[in-house]
Amino acid sequence: MCGIFGIYSNERINVAKRIYYGLFALQHRGQEGAGIATSDGRGFHHYKGIGLVSEVFTNNELQSLYGHIGIGHVRYSTTGDSTIENCQPFVVKSSFGPIAIAHNGDIVNSTILKRELEKMGHIFISSTDSEVIAQLLVRELLKTEDIIEAIKNTAKKLIGAYSLLIMFNDKLIAVRDPNGFKPLCIGRDENCIYFASENCALDTVNAEFVRDIKPGEIVIVDNGEINCYKIEKPCEEVNTELNLPVNNYIYNNCVSTCMFEYVYFARPDSIIDGISVYEVRRKIGRILAKEHPCDADLVSPVPDSGITFALGYSEELEIPYYEGLIKNRYVGRTFILPTQEERDLAVRLKLNPVKSILKDKKVVLVDDSIVRGTTSRRIVNMLKKAGAKEVHLRIGSPRIISPCFYGIDMATKEELIASYKTDEEICKYVNADSLGYLSIEGLVKAIGRKDLCLACVSGYYPTDVSCKF
Amino acid sequence: MCGIFGIYSNERINVAKRIYYGLFALQHRGQEGAGIATSDGRGFHHYKGIGLVSEVFTNNELQSLYGHIGIGHVRYSTTGDSTIENCQPFVVKSSFGPIAIAHNGDIVNSTILKRELEKMGHIFISSTDSEVIAQLLVRELLKTEDIIEAIKNTAKKLIGAYSLLIMFNDKLIAVRDPNGFKPLCIGRDENCIYFASENCALDTVNAEFVRDIKPGEIVIVDNGEINCYKIEKPCEEVNTELNLPVNNYIYNNCVSTCMFEYVYFARPDSIIDGISVYEVRRKIGRILAKEHPCDADLVSPVPDSGITFALGYSEELEIPYYEGLIKNRYVGRTFILPTQEERDLAVRLKLNPVKSILKDKKVVLVDDSIVRGTTSRRIVNMLKKAGAKEVHLRIGSPRIISPCFYGIDMATKEELIASYKTDEEICKYVNADSLGYLSIEGLVKAIGRKDLCLACVSGYYPTDVSCKF
Amino acid sequence: MCGIFGIYSNERINVAKRIYYGLFALQHRGQEGAGIATSDGRGFHHYKGIGLVSEVFTNNELQSLYGHIGIGHVRYSTTGDSTIENCQPFVVKSSFGPIAIAHNGDIVNSTILKRELEKMGHIFISSTDSEVIAQLLVRELLKTEDIIEAIKNTAKKLIGAYSLLIMFNDKLIAVRDPNGFKPLCIGRDENCIYFASENCALDTVNAEFVRDIKPGEIVIVDNGEINCYKIEKPCEEVNTELNLPVNNYIYNNCVSTCMFEYVYFARPDSIIDGISVYEVRRKIGRILAKEHPCDADLVSPVPDSGITFALGYSEELEIPYYEGLIKNRYVGRTFILPTQEERDLAVRLKLNPVKSILKDKKVVLVDDSIVRGTTSRRIVNMLKKAGAKEVHLRIGSPRIISPCFYGIDMATKEELIASYKTDEEICKYVNADSLGYLSIEGLVKAIGRKDLCLACVSGYYPTDVSCKF
Amino acid sequence: MCGIFGIYSNERINVAKRIYYGLFALQHRGQEGAGIATSDGRGFHHYKGIGLVSEVFTNNELQSLYGHIGIGHVRYSTTGDSTIENCQPFVVKSSFGPIAIAHNGDIVNSTILKRELEKMGHIFISSTDSEVIAQLLVRELLKTEDIIEAIKNTAKKLIGAYSLLIMFNDKLIAVRDPNGFKPLCIGRDENCIYFASENCALDTVNAEFVRDIKPGEIVIVDNGEINCYKIEKPCEEVNTELNLPVNNYIYNNCVSTCMFEYVYFARPDSIIDGISVYEVRRKIGRILAKEHPCDADLVSPVPDSGITFALGYSEELEIPYYEGLIKNRYVGRTFILPTQEERDLAVRLKLNPVKSILKDKKVVLVDDSIVRGTTSRRIVNMLKKAGAKEVHLRIGSPRIISPCFYGIDMATKEELIASYKTDEEICKYVNADSLGYLSIEGLVKAIGRKDLCLACVSGYYPTDVSCKF
Repeated sequence: MCGIFGIYSNERINVAKRIYYGLFALQHRGQEGAGIATSDGRGFHHYKGIGLVSEVFTNNELQSLYGHIGIGHVRYSTTGDSTIENCQPFVVKSSFGPIAIAHNGDIVNSTILKRELEKMGHIFISSTDSEVIAQLLVRELLKTEDIIEAIKNTAKKLIGAYSLLIMFNDKLIAVRDPNGFKPLCIGRDENCIYFASENCALDTVNAEFVRDIKPGEIVIVDNGEINCYKIEKPCEEVNTELNLPVNNYIYNNCVSTCMFEYVYFARPDSIIDGISVYEVRRKIGRILAKEHPCDADLVSPVPDSGITFALGYSEELEIPYYEGLIKNRYVGRTFILPTQEERDLAVRLKLNPVKSILKDKKVVLVDDSIVRGTTSRRIVNMLKKAGAKEVHLRIGSPRIISPCFYGIDMATKEELIASYKTDEEICKYVNADSLGYLSIEGLVKAIGRKDLCLACVSGYYPTDVSCKF
Repeated sequence: MCGIFGIYSNERINVAKRIYYGLFALQHRGQEGAGIATSDGRGFHHYKGIGLVSEVFTNNELQSLYGHIGIGHVRYSTTGDSTIENCQPFVVKSSFGPIAIAHNGDIVNSTILKRELEKMGHIFISSTDSEVIAQLLVRELLKTEDIIEAIKNTAKKLIGAYSLLIMFNDKLIAVRDPNGFKPLCIGRDENCIYFASENCALDTVNAEFVRDIKPGEIVIVDNGEINCYKIEKPCEEVNTELNLPVNNYIYNNCVSTCMFEYVYFARPDSIIDGISVYEVRRKIGRILAKEHPCDADLVSPVPDSGITFALGYSEELEIPYYEGLIKNRYVGRTFILPTQEERDLAVRLKLNPVKSILKDKKVVLVDDSIVRGTTSRRIVNMLKKAGAKEVHLRIGSPRIISPCFYGIDMATKEELIASYKTDEEICKYVNADSLGYLSIEGLVKAIGRKDLCLACVSGYYPTDVSCKF
Repeated sequence: MCGIFGIYSNERINVAKRIYYGLFALQHRGQEGAGIATSDGRGFHHYKGIGLVSEVFTNNELQSLYGHIGIGHVRYSTTGDSTIENCQPFVVKSSFGPIAIAHNGDIVNSTILKRELEKMGHIFISSTDSEVIAQLLVRELLKTEDIIEAIKNTAKKLIGAYSLLIMFNDKLIAVRDPNGFKPLCIGRDENCIYFASENCALDTVNAEFVRDIKPGEIVIVDNGEINCYKIEKPCEEVNTELNLPVNNYIYNNCVSTCMFEYVYFARPDSIIDGISVYEVRRKIGRILAKEHPCDADLVSPVPDSGITFALGYSEELEIPYYEGLIKNRYVGRTFILPTQEERDLAVRLKLNPVKSILKDKKVVLVDDSIVRGTTSRRIVNMLKKAGAKEVHLRIGSPRIISPCFYGIDMATKEELIASYKTDEEICKYVNADSLGYLSIEGLVKAIGRKDLCLACVSGYYPTDVSCKF
Repeated sequence: MCGIFGIYSNERINVAKRIYYGLFALQHRGQEGAGIATSDGRGFHHYKGIGLVSEVFTNNELQSLYGHIGIGHVRYSTTGDSTIENCQPFVVKSSFGPIAIAHNGDIVNSTILKRELEKMGHIFISSTDSEVIAQLLVRELLKTEDIIEAIKNTAKKLIGAYSLLIMFNDKLIAVRDPNGFKPLCIGRDENCIYFASENCALDTVNAEFVRDIKPGEIVIVDNGEINCYKIEKPCEEVNTELNLPVNNYIYNNCVSTCMFEYVYFARPDSIIDGISVYEVRRKIGRILAKEHPCDADLVSPVPDSGITFALGYSEELEIPYYEGLIKNRYVGRTFILPTQEERDLAVRLKLNPVKSILKDKKVVLVDDSIVRGTTSRRIVNMLKKAGAKEVHLRIGSPRIISPCFYGIDMATKEELIASYKTDEEICKYVNADSLGYLSIEGLVKAIGRKDLCLACVSGYYPTDVSCKF
């Protein structure tokens, strides 16, 4: 995931504190680290650290981040490598002055690109894609002084997901990859231009939503003016080293926005590419109810992600909605985790059943997805121990059967329970009385657009991913 | 509020880590500070600090807290004095060995008691009631070696709310005041006896709920045995210095459990004095719907406290329930707050409306209470700005008209909007299209018991509070 | 040890920052913890913590310590109990308003006094003498409103060492015990009165030294005026529980200032009771040379404490002075100590011999004292390993044979090597070629006054200490 | 300055803790930051931070630094840019695997090299020379697989001072520049090879000193074997952009070790290129006495750097040596500095005169150098205020007239008082009664070698520095 946020102020006011609030609104997109880089027109200032936005920054740091242009980043660790080097924005000095990059997404061919750059004598400090992009961009800038041309040429080399904010001394540039995997939108107020992963961040700083950046679009703010460009041809070079059969379902580099943004990642108050995330989730619940109805006493979500699905499910079938599980709001990063033997305690610390609701009831339990199945199993057992007579598990997304290479850390294929067990087997494993997944068709219908990345639930990838196998 | 948790292990295992998890489950009762004191039979170990349980304790501290008896405390700051001296448990050395006290509640006559003790040469380090109780208890112990007798004699002096855990070198004692203001319950597993403010904490450590401690009951665990005693006569000495008219509605020292525990404080998965908190909240929603129906398009809560009321309201009137406001889960203690001029930002950081839900809709907005009215006003305006056609405010508790002297920081009488404005005026002030409060009768009916403290909504106090005026 | 520093400003300026600098100059007297309490005339502000002055305080804390009267303390841990409760100043609320106490010294009969107070119902939070003194003082204040009378009466109960600073809302009081064990002096500038353990702290804040406070003197600053009083009769009640033979050498409660202040504790730029610490140390070196001359190639100190002695020794015998051991200046509190097996490493981290100086040389090594003998042994061996032909150990103080009960943590009698070994045996144990201690007579002569506490080197205590055996 | 330390263990034990102790012994060479990188043969682990070695590392970090090869660095900030990016070792990933570099010294032409690399598309994260060296080295490695060849080719490009430790997955390499500006030595024990800036660090970890690395020497430890190589031809390309007259005094790229290592930087217990630092300093004192004798009552140093000079001076003229100024040992990094108006306080916090020594005396005050003159002025005035009748200032190094480009932050030429004032004027400015500098000839004689860098005291640089003007 990751979240990015940028501001260009025409009035030359300091923007760091506003970026702080913007990142705070995007905190759900990454809790591993946070960073802000600003430009005062003559030089850069930057600060980053491990932890939540509120943990990384104090007033002291914000006050030292002078400048009227700035970008920020909240990091979601896909690789587990949560060192400070891997936090973003990534700031470098080049012959074109300092450059800062904040990136949301995963570049599929980054290892290949890195190896090529290394062969040309480049070195790498971090294990981020941002550094790869920075090195490529600077090389392209050496060939052409035209920044837009350089970005286009860089994009030609990249396969995968990238919503980018790029800051130069006096410019702010936003880029969304041609597939449009990850969201990115533009906002404004009287004096500033904003870019944000989700429009909920614009609401927080009271900026007006202008529009989503289009897949393959480059938006540049320079000297107070906004100009838009198009990445003409997405990457087509086949970067295979091995000669595996290429997926060809929708491997056409069409727009293919990540469906999980709607299902799970984005905040429900966001609107992505014109579609309300909350509406999608509610509809998913209804369609799920139609696809897998159940004659139960009550519908209960696994909080928080199952709530809106469960409400839709309840509404469709007119089964009462109850909060059968209470979530402890204080589970945090620094918490002393129970030891391995205390796995059940780990779940109990987070969730507690409301016995008076569940006692002797047939319960529809709604969750957003099943990955390994172990957590679902613990929760179902928790409900049964609390007195539930039956537990019918309903899942607001299709079976996850393939790994994501575009920015979501989903476990390897071998770990994905739906990749090697039938629904019946999974149902038995998680100890549920019945199990129903949303269909792919149902998902597409709920979202209301077809240009989606469904790789993880279909196994068909919208880009060449042969280098990953 | 505050939360307390204690363990006595017959098997002499270290209990600190389990107290940590118990406090974690009670974190909603206080986020200002946390502490744990343990006894290994020969001496005490203790540690406390400012912040959340997870911020105060690291593995290092927990490991140094040896001992098979222990008590813990999470602090809710009623006075704003969040110094480490005021964190609990309060640990002292006396001629009866070390004593640790953890206290939930407010002693009405503590200032008078303190002044009396000071006149006898006692000094005070903290501004906690625990220190007053400790000094009184030690004085009583000097008169009688019988601990139970000493506790009874101490209780005779105290007016107000006190759920207490008291630890001696080899004993653990739980006390609930004769009014039973604050909850306190007993749990057990194979080897340990537990005491907790709420039974949800017992669930977390997998202990079995035994029963609530009765108002006026003393429970002592000594040498592995449990014995129960009764505080015979609650305090009757009138501690007035001024001669104000005494409230006499239910000023009879009857049991009078805080109704706000059901409405707001306790976790919904807790059962207090045999009554499910969740059930109460749902019923409140229904009764509120009957008392103040509304022909609206949708019902939406102010998250999180309004959710269960709103579900009940929606259910009763069959108006669809929608989450019209999204809460940011990451607002925390260390957050850099917006300046005074940015008050609206403060609300926007916490709550964001879902425009696609609210647009052109008649909305019933359900909240738990109105104190000053300023927050309600901001939220109603936020909904209207997001497109809501009408906003009908429904409140899951009666008008708050009098301050609480038993442990809730509610602002002074002058600040309580319902103490000086009519419903109509309030409705206008908060910019709602209609306003409905739950009636006192409705509240009592929803909770299903009459022995409640209703001081803040009725102005009639269950104990003498003349010294407060 | 411990160091104390206080200011009373007539001009009502904030004094906290100046106290900070004063404590900084006294940092050598205690590195375990530091604290400052101030009074703005209406209330107290205080802050304390574990660590060096520079670690405990940031600008934030200093700025919040409003007030024109203030006292500070640096803590030297005699008991090893370095908890924040034991840091000072000790601040209490009493019927006489808030009181803060900072104490340098050890009260011999504090356990007895504590037990008596506990029997009267008093409780204790800390294990400091300050708390005992505070409780006694408040009890005396109840008997007489006259503060001076109350202090005198309190003093009558105390046996032992106490240089005290006591702060009331509008008064600052300094007390030095009748024996005058620990130094305490008065300073001033245009607007302020100062009290400090050593006059070097007055130099730092550019205050003028006025005079030493006399043994048994009380100095009170109230309403801008200074008044002095005398503690008439020192404690004479014999607090024995056991009936041991009382020491009677100079057990007469005469003035008996700690000789180790001159030998080791005080900074060399201080002048205590009119005698320059530096001059004393230089003279000790000369007298030591006369008492234990040596035909060596060079004189080298164990840095830092042996330096001035070694210079005096070198001067007297006209043997060249060389720095044969280099001290690492960065050994600090947070350093990761070598494990038990790496004891030699611990010494090597701190001290390193200069081989080119020592090679094939007869070396006189001068140190301030020998306690257990283990460190001396390691250093002598280090010199020999570095090539020294002979190492002649000279000690700038007499044999330590008895524990100190007045504030110095010297190990128990059993651990003091000089209490159970002859000089010859010690010399052999530390692997030196000869060993010479300063005589008691030599010490008295070097200091130039006879009213000294020589308990640790003579076994004769200037006060009743029977309760310690 | 900066200090570097490296270990290669044949026995595959973890070396991080030993590097920690080695860095601790080199702490005097840099207090701004510290870092350690280790290799376990398969990958690197590294950690670095701002502050002292003891502040940066806890046991946790040391334990996570697995590996039998490792290098460490203590940073002295020449540029004031104390960000974590500028701390070392600098660790990069390249097509030759990970590489870590620790650097002591300053590369004169680094800006030019950086600009060239940038023109080839390279980007920079830090402002360290280490990054420039890393980039150059990787480019050379692409041309030849031979590491030694690549290092030689890299060296050909570098003008200036560099003692380097370079770590590959399975190799440890030490390099000293052809001029031999900065020290670097080899040590060993039964199982390990060590490299250290100074041999005092070898003493600390109980390793045996083997020999100094020669100027222009490359030492590589690979597969347990040590091999040595020679950088054949030092850099001769003239990197001038401007056409300034080139200095030609000893601009011959001969060996030219920094004389200030002997005078000030190195620890006195170190031996650099076979010459004892302590002996040099003592001799300087004697020669200074011969060059600038004085009929004074006593000799006193400015502690700590003036001490050994003062002892030599005292010895030569048989004037008694006294410690007339006492230094506060606790001035540290986190200290709250006095404001601009309190400059005198800043000096008083650090130094305090011993009045009893100075009163009415003619004093020779010995310091190591005069840079701007302001500190000397404050100290002389402090002595006079303390009663000194006359103050004769003697300086243990020649006049500093030119800036250093090899690693010492000495202020610009305009700030160097000796570059624009005569001795007489300086004497007057600092308020001394006489002033004497060590002559360049005296310095060379005291050190006992002629191959020294005397650039700062002569204005003649041993390398081309035209790009600096």
